[in-house]
Amino acid sequence: MGSEEVSNKQVIFKDYVVGVPKESDMELITSKIILKVPEDSTGILLKNLYLSCDPYMSGRMRKNRGPTYVETFQPGSPITGFGVVKVVDSRHPNFKTGDLLWGMTGWEEYSLISSPSPDMFFKIEHTDVPLSYYTGILGMPGITAYGGFYELASPKKGDRVYVSAASGAVGQIVGQLAKLTGCYVVGSAGSKEKVDLLKSKFGFDEAFNYKEEEDLDAALKRYFPEGIDIYFENVGGKMLEAVLSNMRVKGRIAVCGMISQYNLEQPEGVHNLFHITTKRIRMEGFIAREYYHLYPKYLEMILPNIKEGKISYVEDVAEGLESAPSALIGLYSGRNVGKQLVVVARD
Amino acid sequence: MGSEEVSNKQVIFKDYVVGVPKESDMELITSKIILKVPEDSTGILLKNLYLSCDPYMSGRMRKNRGPTYVETFQPGSPITGFGVVKVVDSRHPNFKTGDLLWGMTGWEEYSLISSPSPDMFFKIEHTDVPLSYYTGILGMPGITAYGGFYELASPKKGDRVYVSAASGAVGQIVGQLAKLTGCYVVGSAGSKEKVDLLKSKFGFDEAFNYKEEEDLDAALKRYFPEGIDIYFENVGGKMLEAVLSNMRVKGRIAVCGMISQYNLEQPEGVHNLFHITTKRIRMEGFIAREYYHLYPKYLEMILPNIKEGKISYVEDVAEGLESAPSALIGLYSGRNVGKQLVVVARD
Repeated sequence: MGSEEVSNKQVIFKDYVVGVPKESDMELITSKIILKVPEDSTGILLKNLYLSCDPYMSGRMRKNRGPTYVETFQPGSPITGFGVVKVVDSRHPNFKTGDLLWGMTGWEEYSLISSPSPDMFFKIEHTDVPLSYYTGILGMPGITAYGGFYELASPKKGDRVYVSAASGAVGQIVGQLAKLTGCYVVGSAGSKEKVDLLKSKFGFDEAFNYKEEEDLDAALKRYFPEGIDIYFENVGGKMLEAVLSNMRVKGRIAVCGMISQYNLEQPEGVHNLFHITTKRIRMEGFIAREYYHLYPKYLEMILPNIKEGKISYVEDVAEGLESAPSALIGLYSGRNVGKQLVVVARD
Repeated sequence: MGSEEVSNKQVIFKDYVVGVPKESDMELITSKIILKVPEDSTGILLKNLYLSCDPYMSGRMRKNRGPTYVETFQPGSPITGFGVVKVVDSRHPNFKTGDLLWGMTGWEEYSLISSPSPDMFFKIEHTDVPLSYYTGILGMPGITAYGGFYELASPKKGDRVYVSAASGAVGQIVGQLAKLTGCYVVGSAGSKEKVDLLKSKFGFDEAFNYKEEEDLDAALKRYFPEGIDIYFENVGGKMLEAVLSNMRVKGRIAVCGMISQYNLEQPEGVHNLFHITTKRIRMEGFIAREYYHLYPKYLEMILPNIKEGKISYVEDVAEGLESAPSALIGLYSGRNVGKQLVVVARD
């Protein structure tokens, strides 16, 4: 590649957002970039291959949102997020040209990271699986599912497990891990197509379309007449309220996300938290980062399962950086079927 | 005492309650009782000395309240609850006449327990402290404070601890345990008198009257500019919401009770539960019973502290069974100052 200047398409974050983000909150521009790390830096120059669209990202579009675990986007700068990248040039001792990595990168064709911290990227060692999986089952969503389910929710054989947003990037993994553990697993999703996937592809014992249930409490009672041991929480609000009423004594709620609430001006109130005491429920939040140290152990477990076809992963692939804003926004209406990602380049 | 028949005043639960319970939901009657266990039973006959008024009891007055950890009162039968009792007669191998016990008894002068389960009562071995303490710091509220704070909330020196309903039966113990552990401790209560107690008697670092705070969030920010590590939750509702906004990363919420919500037709909604994820909060419910096995260890720790005056306990003592309904109802408006109990007899 050398040091030639090339054009660099970028998805720019325009300005802070209130309410549901829209495609027009982002803008595609084309700038120029020299494909060489400046001599006075220890940076790396990345070619972005696959970009991950994740629900938490709308939070990064808001101003003054109080303490959180990830910084707000900078108006005028590219969106950033997890992605699979190839090192095009490096002046950093930990990375060399040709390395495949996954980690935090920019929504653009090429990104210059001036001073990459060593823990910002994971090196991709296994390429006999789809590279795009490193935005999903082999990346942050995978660690999220693994850590949240095995470490936080303390599952055991026979536990009754409920997963909301179950066909999403994390939910589909959690459901399959729960089946591997010998649990009874029920998932909910927002369309017939997704519900079919849960049962036919991911092996959930039961699944339902929450949009077709007038009474979520009744739906949960139908699938969990004896109650829920583990709830893997991805949606929040009214669903959480219905779940609390159906939890079993000593149940565990792994609070991964609350996508139904992210873009509301006033999130829904949950009125029955006293179940937490009467049923001695443990409700605990977590983020993937806390389980990064388990990544090697997770890979060792999940890779053979993927290769042997015992675990499936469904992706919703948007082609080209141009489609990235629409792909991201689609998450908040549940338009994606499976893990939403964007292909910028395939190698 | 022998087998003579004596009169037995009783506080009868009249009928299921909706909303805030009233004194008139209970009625004082006088019946007769023979002070001898029938020959064909393995029961015990108890003289009730001190009765405990506890916030959870209003829940027992409601019909159809779903799964819970303690049964509903029977209309037409006496209220039941924790108390300190003396064995008057026994046909049970574990109990003998003259034994002092604490455990579940009736709101009456004498109670016949036909088949006491061995774990229904704890034997009182130490009588060089006020016997009434076995309704409080040496009884269920003591184990609640100890288990909830040390076992569930994982405190360490320097932690910033917030206790609501802090002058109550459990709160005053938690605050003092937290001080023993080297924590910074702030309590809230509902009157100037209680706030003064927290600071002057129980050694809280700071205390405030929540009724005088227009903005609970601002009040918490004043006392916890760097946030809260441990919240010992006794009240629920809006207070919990304000606390969630002020929790620190990896904070713990020990959900002991939610007295502000017990008697509402529709409990308040909590709208900011997503802090549980962003700040990786652990929120966990518990009841005293789970920590009963720690009682000997707790006594070993707390008794010397009480005798040396390092831990204080304030009781609000109502005289006579006649005063029991009013004493119980007073809990729900915060009329009691300290642990509310009723003296039926002193020996």
